Formats: sequence, structure tokens, C-alpha cells
Amino acid sequence: MECGGTKFVCATGDETGRLFERKEFPATTPVETIGRALEFFGGLAHPLEAIGIGSFGPVDLDPASPKFGYITSTPKDGWRDTDLMGAVRRATGRPVAFDTDVNAAALGEARWGAAQGLDTFLYLTIGTGVGGGGMANSRLMHGLVHPEMGHIRVPHDWGADGFAGGCPFHGDCLEGLVAGPAIEARWGQRGETLPPEHAAWDLEAHYIALGLATWICTLSPRRIILGGGVMRQAHLFPRIRKEALALLNGYIQAPEILERMEEYIVAPALGGDAGVLGAIALAVGEGG
Amino acid sequence: MECGGTKFVCATGDETGRLFERKEFPATTPVETIGRALEFFGGLAHPLEAIGIGSFGPVDLDPASPKFGYITSTPKDGWRDTDLMGAVRRATGRPVAFDTDVNAAALGEARWGAAQGLDTFLYLTIGTGVGGGGMANSRLMHGLVHPEMGHIRVPHDWGADGFAGGCPFHGDCLEGLVAGPAIEARWGQRGETLPPEHAAWDLEAHYIALGLATWICTLSPRRIILGGGVMRQAHLFPRIRKEALALLNGYIQAPEILERMEEYIVAPALGGDAGVLGAIALAVGEGG
Repeated sequence: MECGGTKFVCATGDETGRLFERKEFPATTPVETIGRALEFFGGLAHPLEAIGIGSFGPVDLDPASPKFGYITSTPKDGWRDTDLMGAVRRATGRPVAFDTDVNAAALGEARWGAAQGLDTFLYLTIGTGVGGGGMANSRLMHGLVHPEMGHIRVPHDWGADGFAGGCPFHGDCLEGLVAGPAIEARWGQRGETLPPEHAAWDLEAHYIALGLATWICTLSPRRIILGGGVMRQAHLFPRIRKEALALLNGYIQAPEILERMEEYIVAPALGGDAGVLGAIALAVGEGG
Repeated sequence: MECGGTKFVCATGDETGRLFERKEFPATTPVETIGRALEFFGGLAHPLEAIGIGSFGPVDLDPASPKFGYITSTPKDGWRDTDLMGAVRRATGRPVAFDTDVNAAALGEARWGAAQGLDTFLYLTIGTGVGGGGMANSRLMHGLVHPEMGHIRVPHDWGADGFAGGCPFHGDCLEGLVAGPAIEARWGQRGETLPPEHAAWDLEAHYIALGLATWICTLSPRRIILGGGVMRQAHLFPRIRKEALALLNGYIQAPEILERMEEYIVAPALGGDAGVLGAIALAVGEGG
């Protein structure tokens, strides 16, 4: 199951990436939303071997922690300290694998999509928020907590952009500058309603490319996959590639960047199914 | 051997981290400098089993590449496309392990220093330049090329700092703002000569903390080790910790950050020997 801050997607599938049943519903209260997920799992035609959860966060991924499997310090109303994994495990009696929604989507892309065979890559989603995950040394990125890539700081172009930024924690971190709500707050209308030639998009591409340049210098990913609602504006891709190339300015001497940018910064091959397929990949097992 | 852009350190040691012979010399031309290293290896009292090289970069770490083991696109005069690993291997007939200088130092700290037992951590050196390495998922960070962390972009505080930045590729990337030459260019005197109460250091701590906040959100390291000439100003540590905490603003809910910052952002336990001990650790083998 893909547990986003806006909607949940429950689905069943197998280790080849085929999907069988599938159901979507909005993320309202924990009781109602988790209840609808459990209802889905209770009414399946197929027997269920294991469940994978890719969840919005922050989440607790430390198996030694008393809050392992919880959604922790989220600003989303009512969801703070929610034992999501425990609720699913107790109700279904099945083994449950748990990770961030972006790491799940990254694993889906690694198994069946645009990141097959890559030991180090990035998966970013730019929508209601900005999230990042991926693999380093052929395993999903974890650590002290887990990546919270949307909250990196980038140079704010005050000359072109007087919007102060919309992140309640950091103001003008990357998420505060480029997520859907920031676009709407800055321009007074939703991104979907802004035409491709609107100044919003050059600014958007500039800030996203600043983030990518920083991550390229930090992680040296072999590919960067950009998903999420904002990236449905396909015209952003060539702008972001061009801007990232200009920002790196020839410093990283790799033909993947210098000559093949259109294969280096790409859309998810699994499209909107990356998240739920990734959750199924989690259930199958990271090594499987 | 630790091959820095300023000096080389050659040493012999064993798998317990003991050092025997040791010799330092300035990095002049490749012919002269590599020649002095080979002279060192030719005149040893102990038999030599393997050699580890931690080198300034960028370097080519791809075993499948024709330039594997080369220093590649460095701006350092005369060193572009230098087959450092090949020269050492041919002259000594020993197996040679090769990585960046910062990854070598990171491995030294993981084996014998401040990063023992940590699956994910960062090692940064702030001196003539800014370099970063470390481990993700218990292995040194590689990828398309290797991390070039000094070149991330951070918000430039134009109100407090009119210096345009000193990086020949990116101007005011992190290295362009905080490396030793940037301090000297901004204030007209070398950092060592500036007293702790000078405004230079609050600005320095601010920029470094911006970098750390970005890396904490990206990699979620379990610890950050800060070495290099600039960090010999020990008064920087408490300033950087305080500023990083303020920048993160409670978003990352981990007691290591919220309560134990003085154990989270630390100096190298191996001091100035991290690099050369790390090269010996490379020779012993990453898994050894």
C-alpha cells in the first residue's frame, strides 16, 4: 500500500510487477483511512503473503525503536505518532515491510522501471511536498532517520521571486519554494492552470536544478527520476536538464551528464504506479 | 599514501592502525612528487603487501574505465590526466587500492576513529578546498563519479557578505564561500591570523551549517566528522552545532541531533593521520 499525505492506494500484485486488485481513497483521519485499507485487505480474492507499506513521513524505520513503523512528527493533522505498520500487521497477521513512500517508489523503479541495474540513483517526487529517496551502494537510503530531501536549502532568487517560501519549518527550503502549494501561493493560482510559457516554470526549473546540482555533487547518482504532480508538466524536463547542466558548468566529467542529460534526468517509467508497485517490491523484499 | 593537492604523506602501517615509517613532501609536479613517493616505497625496512592511495580529485574510480586510477579534470597545474595508481602499481608490483582522499580518511575514521560501527556517516574536510566522503549502507560512497560535496550551492548571505565566491567553476558554491582561500580573499588576511571574535567565523559557521543541514536532510548521517585546516579553529565547532540546530528547526526528530549535537558533529578522532591511516585501511581492504 502507498500511503501518501493526500491519498492511499491499496493494491495486490506479484513478484513480476503485475497488479491485480487496486483501490484508492483520500487520506482523511487515521482511523477512517487505515480502516478502509484493512477493509481492502480483508476482502481479497487472492491469498496475501506479505504487505509492503510506503508511507508519507517522517516515519520511524529503526527496528530497535519502540515506535518502529510509526508515522512520527508529521505536520498532517491527527497523524502524529500513528502506528501504521502495527495496525496493518495486527489486523492481517501477515509480515509487513515498511519504508518511506519515496524509497518504496525508488525500489519499484529499481525492480521494474527506470533504475534497473543502477547501484546509486535518486528518486524525487515534487507535488504537495518534495520527497527524495533512492539507493546508495545498491540498497535503499536510510541512516539516522531517512532522507528528507525536500528540506535542503538552496539560494533564493530574491530578484525574480519575492515569495518568502511556504515550509512551516524552514520557510524557503526547496520544498517551501517549489512544491505545489508554493506555486499556488506565489502566483495566486494552481500550477495546472499556468500555461507553459508562464514565468512560474523557469523559476521552478531553476530551483529544482539547484537541488539536483547539490544532490549530484553529494551522492553522484547514476540517474535521477523526477515524479509527482508538479512533474506532470512535461515541459519542465528540458528546462531542468539545461539549467542543471549550466549550474554544474562542466565540473563533473561524466558523459552521462555532459552528453546524455535526457537519459540522466527522467520521468518514472512506472508513472503513477511507481509508489504502489514499490510497496509490492518492499513486500517481496529488497534483495528479491 | 595520502595524496593531497598541497602535500603527499607516505607511510607504512599494519591492520591494527599502527604507523611505522612516515614521510611528507609538497605536491609539486607529478614527475617529482610521484618520484619521491616511489623512492619512499623502494627504501622500506618492512616488506610491502599492498598499497592504498587516497587522492585529491576528481579521480576515475570505475574499474572498467581506461582511466581507472587517474586524477582526471583537476584544475591543479600539470596534474590533469595523471595515471597515479598505474605509476605506483608498475613501480612497486604490489596491489593498489584507490579512492578519493576524503573517502580514505572516512574509512580510517570508520576503522579506528570516530565512525566505528556507523553504517552511514559523513567525513568532510574544510581547508584549501572542501571535500566530502563517507559511508552509506556500510560502504564508501561512490556512484557515477564520486561525491564532490564542496560544490553544493547554499544561500549566499549578501547582506553580511559581499564576497562573490572563489570557485573557478561555480563562484559561490560552498567551497567558493568557506575554503581557506575564500576566507583570505574576503578578509584580506589568512584565517589563522583572524581572532576567534572576528566576524569571519560567524559567517564561516553559518555557511558550513547550511551545508550540514542540506547533507543531514539528504543522507541522514549518523555522525558528521569535520576535519581540514580551517576546522583547526576549534571555536568553530560549537558555533556550527548551534547554527545547524537552528537551521533544522526541530524537523529531524532524532535525539542525536536534538540532544547530543556535541557527539553528532565532531572532529576526526585520528586528527591529521586520518588520511594516511585511511589509505592504509584501503590497502587492508574495505571489508577487512
